[in-house]
Amino acid sequence: MVVAGASGFAGALAASLVHRHPRLELAAATARTDAGTRLDRLYPRYRVPIELTELETESAGDYEAAIVAYPHGAAAEVVARFVEAGVPVVDVSADFRLHDLAVYEETYGDHTAPGLLADAVYGLTELHRDEVRGARLVANPGCYPTAAILALAPLAEGGLAEDVVISAASGVSGAGRVAGDRFHFVSVDENFTPYGIEGHRHLPEIVQELDGAGRVTFVPHLVPLDQGLLASCFVTTSRDVEAEELRRLYVERYEGEPFVEVVDQPPGVREVRDTNLCRIHVAVDERTGRAMAFAAIDNLWKGAASQAIQNLNLMLGFDETEGLL
Amino acid sequence: MVVAGASGFAGALAASLVHRHPRLELAAATARTDAGTRLDRLYPRYRVPIELTELETESAGDYEAAIVAYPHGAAAEVVARFVEAGVPVVDVSADFRLHDLAVYEETYGDHTAPGLLADAVYGLTELHRDEVRGARLVANPGCYPTAAILALAPLAEGGLAEDVVISAASGVSGAGRVAGDRFHFVSVDENFTPYGIEGHRHLPEIVQELDGAGRVTFVPHLVPLDQGLLASCFVTTSRDVEAEELRRLYVERYEGEPFVEVVDQPPGVREVRDTNLCRIHVAVDERTGRAMAFAAIDNLWKGAASQAIQNLNLMLGFDETEGLL
Amino acid sequence: MVVAGASGFAGALAASLVHRHPRLELAAATARTDAGTRLDRLYPRYRVPIELTELETESAGDYEAAIVAYPHGAAAEVVARFVEAGVPVVDVSADFRLHDLAVYEETYGDHTAPGLLADAVYGLTELHRDEVRGARLVANPGCYPTAAILALAPLAEGGLAEDVVISAASGVSGAGRVAGDRFHFVSVDENFTPYGIEGHRHLPEIVQELDGAGRVTFVPHLVPLDQGLLASCFVTTSRDVEAEELRRLYVERYEGEPFVEVVDQPPGVREVRDTNLCRIHVAVDERTGRAMAFAAIDNLWKGAASQAIQNLNLMLGFDETEGLL
Amino acid sequence: MVVAGASGFAGALAASLVHRHPRLELAAATARTDAGTRLDRLYPRYRVPIELTELETESAGDYEAAIVAYPHGAAAEVVARFVEAGVPVVDVSADFRLHDLAVYEETYGDHTAPGLLADAVYGLTELHRDEVRGARLVANPGCYPTAAILALAPLAEGGLAEDVVISAASGVSGAGRVAGDRFHFVSVDENFTPYGIEGHRHLPEIVQELDGAGRVTFVPHLVPLDQGLLASCFVTTSRDVEAEELRRLYVERYEGEPFVEVVDQPPGVREVRDTNLCRIHVAVDERTGRAMAFAAIDNLWKGAASQAIQNLNLMLGFDETEGLL
Repeated sequence: MVVAGASGFAGALAASLVHRHPRLELAAATARTDAGTRLDRLYPRYRVPIELTELETESAGDYEAAIVAYPHGAAAEVVARFVEAGVPVVDVSADFRLHDLAVYEETYGDHTAPGLLADAVYGLTELHRDEVRGARLVANPGCYPTAAILALAPLAEGGLAEDVVISAASGVSGAGRVAGDRFHFVSVDENFTPYGIEGHRHLPEIVQELDGAGRVTFVPHLVPLDQGLLASCFVTTSRDVEAEELRRLYVERYEGEPFVEVVDQPPGVREVRDTNLCRIHVAVDERTGRAMAFAAIDNLWKGAASQAIQNLNLMLGFDETEGLL
Repeated sequence: MVVAGASGFAGALAASLVHRHPRLELAAATARTDAGTRLDRLYPRYRVPIELTELETESAGDYEAAIVAYPHGAAAEVVARFVEAGVPVVDVSADFRLHDLAVYEETYGDHTAPGLLADAVYGLTELHRDEVRGARLVANPGCYPTAAILALAPLAEGGLAEDVVISAASGVSGAGRVAGDRFHFVSVDENFTPYGIEGHRHLPEIVQELDGAGRVTFVPHLVPLDQGLLASCFVTTSRDVEAEELRRLYVERYEGEPFVEVVDQPPGVREVRDTNLCRIHVAVDERTGRAMAFAAIDNLWKGAASQAIQNLNLMLGFDETEGLL
Repeated sequence: MVVAGASGFAGALAASLVHRHPRLELAAATARTDAGTRLDRLYPRYRVPIELTELETESAGDYEAAIVAYPHGAAAEVVARFVEAGVPVVDVSADFRLHDLAVYEETYGDHTAPGLLADAVYGLTELHRDEVRGARLVANPGCYPTAAILALAPLAEGGLAEDVVISAASGVSGAGRVAGDRFHFVSVDENFTPYGIEGHRHLPEIVQELDGAGRVTFVPHLVPLDQGLLASCFVTTSRDVEAEELRRLYVERYEGEPFVEVVDQPPGVREVRDTNLCRIHVAVDERTGRAMAFAAIDNLWKGAASQAIQNLNLMLGFDETEGLL
Repeated sequence: MVVAGASGFAGALAASLVHRHPRLELAAATARTDAGTRLDRLYPRYRVPIELTELETESAGDYEAAIVAYPHGAAAEVVARFVEAGVPVVDVSADFRLHDLAVYEETYGDHTAPGLLADAVYGLTELHRDEVRGARLVANPGCYPTAAILALAPLAEGGLAEDVVISAASGVSGAGRVAGDRFHFVSVDENFTPYGIEGHRHLPEIVQELDGAGRVTFVPHLVPLDQGLLASCFVTTSRDVEAEELRRLYVERYEGEPFVEVVDQPPGVREVRDTNLCRIHVAVDERTGRAMAFAAIDNLWKGAASQAIQNLNLMLGFDETEGLL
């Protein structure tokens, strides 16, 4: 199979996971400016001995499947190329996550392949497993939405989430391999900063998926570490929910899920680094009766590349956990 | 003057600030297990050339003023000693912050000098400046309360804060010079963890001071950096508040305050490191109408040692900013 | 098999590697103070679902093999117990690394099982592979010696290393799970410090193995990261060595080695994190003719736990790379 | 006075130090791409309320003094402009550090104002104090040379340094405010890498100043922290030097120096952060007789901006420590 856009953080990890996958073969990995470079020179630690090629020289139909890890906006036409060639695609970008074209264009600008929106399945596996199985195009969720939606779905699905505050924090790899002052070591080191408070572009995804939820506020923060993302969620419930009921709700909702762990302590992001896991802890704030859910993921893994593999496994009829344990 | 408990993080910085203060002289600095050691060996960077002594060998009445930086519980009797000798005291511990003895004992255990509670002024200078001026005992606020209360006071004072979520994060120095797995470099590095969710002991302070506020939830997180604390506050207001009104409310409330800056961007904690400043940014979440306030401080400075100096300056009739700019 | 001392950093990782090893089974993991705790609560990220037991309750002879990860001094008698029961042992401590008892005792104090010293093989696999194969007791090298010896062996073996300076740096996990001021986050963060300059206890190992080398100076530094170790070695050679000859010497010496990579760029420790690899780069300083070798490893992996598995694989007749790729 | 090039790390700190200096006034701060921006928006923590202007709009002769913090190559013509206008200049770039034009051009390329080289004084204050006093152009040393030369001068001046290895490490701010993959947080975090081993451009400075030294090898490393630089120096001496003699040599050489501290423990870089200090520890490696010197500075302070102030103080006839304590 092929990973298109393998020189960015998520694409490179996806290529590495494909390379190590027992049932997939990394036939090609493409890049725009880095074509001609070996992937194991750009990312020595992943040890993928392949030379990056230009997408243009690849024939879309040659592959059994594709992961596209282009920036939003640029991804849609690459995805379209594979879909037209009949190749199952997981798109790691935002281009097919939002069902409503108007919301997409308000958030990201023009869409170059709106005709495919109707076919795309939102690939938060734990919510849409059956649709993913039959999909030819899966839109892999954003990193913040992955953690926030998993943290809130049991409450939202039960109609209990009346008012929601999501205060989240992500490591720097979440911003991608972007140059510039903002992600320079010296800007991030010994710092902790809220951002995107005027409306982060991951919010529409969260709102779309938490259909049953009421008012939702989402604010992310940048934390001085590489991989890791925590969503701390504060929920005013539509009726009183006791701690034990809350816990039971989550345990039952995620029973049998191979990659969701409901734990009895607030999770630190280190606990899930380099895994496809989401660890969730729930509690009730006794003074106010507010429900609280804390979800930790690795933004590059469950928040991007390994969730793409999880989805691809389902699309290709493999066991969901193949190559991820 | 004397700093009692100068071997901990806050006490050592307080000693350093006294040492550099144009109108104070560091006559003695005491410590329990570290007595006999020079302070500039324990904390080379502060460069305070004084040998730590045992408190027992000092005569309380010899000093013009005292800063006490003992652990909570242990501080009260040291404070009492100075108060009885007629020496003005700033207590950096939690022992005199809560006006209600029952709340104190529920939070921290027995109190060894409850008779002094009525005399103690809660030293969040921006809220209680006049009382601090005449006080003989000032209870210096906790680090989280300092940021959270400054972030919320303008809304609470106006009766606008109906429902409040405070999601805060602090650097590791906030935990004090405590050994053990939890603050080992390897535990904290590349990690980000919520804690104290069952009810952090700084909550009662916040509730006490935000008297006008409704339901308050407070959850802190540990962030892998040394000095810095951010309180991200989400407020459901009792009536609609527009962004411009909100901003004006804060600008006016803090006009003339030498150490509070209302800024037009979300503040990072690096911006206030090694200063007595609190930087606040406010915004309205357009989708929900929720008011948001973000306050950044240095937990060791405005959250502890430099606020102690700010209070001491007022108690001794100096300019409030003396030694702090 | 059993990992004795599985609650420390190296022991826990060893237990995790055994747990994932295709040909080993983790039958027991013991600990002293942490017995009764589940390993996946102490180290969630390793995900080893086993409860730590007390060594005393285990019968040494029940196991096919043992890894002992006790502190030096305490390890020897535990190792002896397994050896006496006929169980092959890899000892991660320093207790059997030095062939000369006098040197051991000068460095570490009394030895409780000196009779076993003669049987122990120094387990730097790339130097002593054949002896490891037949050994019943392998002394796993220290982290600094692993990198330094691999960096210098080709020169030392050829009698070319006349004068050697090793300036090394290690992440904090190398110090082990030790409480105290020195490894508190606040002590290490934003710091970089030489230590052990009066004679670090890893020096005798290095000298023993670099038998052909002349004067050797070794100074380690503590660097603010978790896992990673770099040995920067500066060698005055006994005759002129050109860059190309130097490079060829290393390439040939390590040809076919599954875990040593001679690379054409100075290696960063991130490149080998969470791997059993050692990456080495060599160059000649044109101005002085000095040979330079830079070796990067993960101190917890190749510098401890994964090298233990590498050795165990050989002792048990498995492929050396089993469970390590 | 004016700081030209105040938007880079060193220039901004220099502007801040001038702003706080009791005898200097920051009349202007210039920048190329950032002109029009306020300095306290670019660097909130320095709190310098000035708008950056374009150098072209400033009249060189209007100022009592200038600090030029341009990149090497670009600095020379700006410096020349001030020198021609009779304004004393400290140049923080490399353009006037090397007395030998040929060495400069081999290291940095063409020089645009070679005629001024003869006038420039190498501003390592502790070595050239008297020349600095009378200079109209001071070339402020590089960060690595500052630490390395201070660490080695007592030995070199006594003709004792026969063979020298300098293994140094610097925080990321030393690289300047440069975008790109190499200094992205994700590249530096949890990493430690040697670089410039083919001949770092600070080497010629070191060789020039350590005139009495023999063979010198210098290799820098990048360490994941912001401010801080350590030079670990290993010296084969021309005759046996005992530990006590070595220590006395350094204590006497630096006696009375306000910014050099000879200490009895290996220094960590945190100990000198945000100061103009250089802390040096010396020891003899007993096994080899090698002398070792470890020098810690803050690369942005003593390694750049504050040393510029130290030199400017002397040039203008102020006390050398003015504004630096």
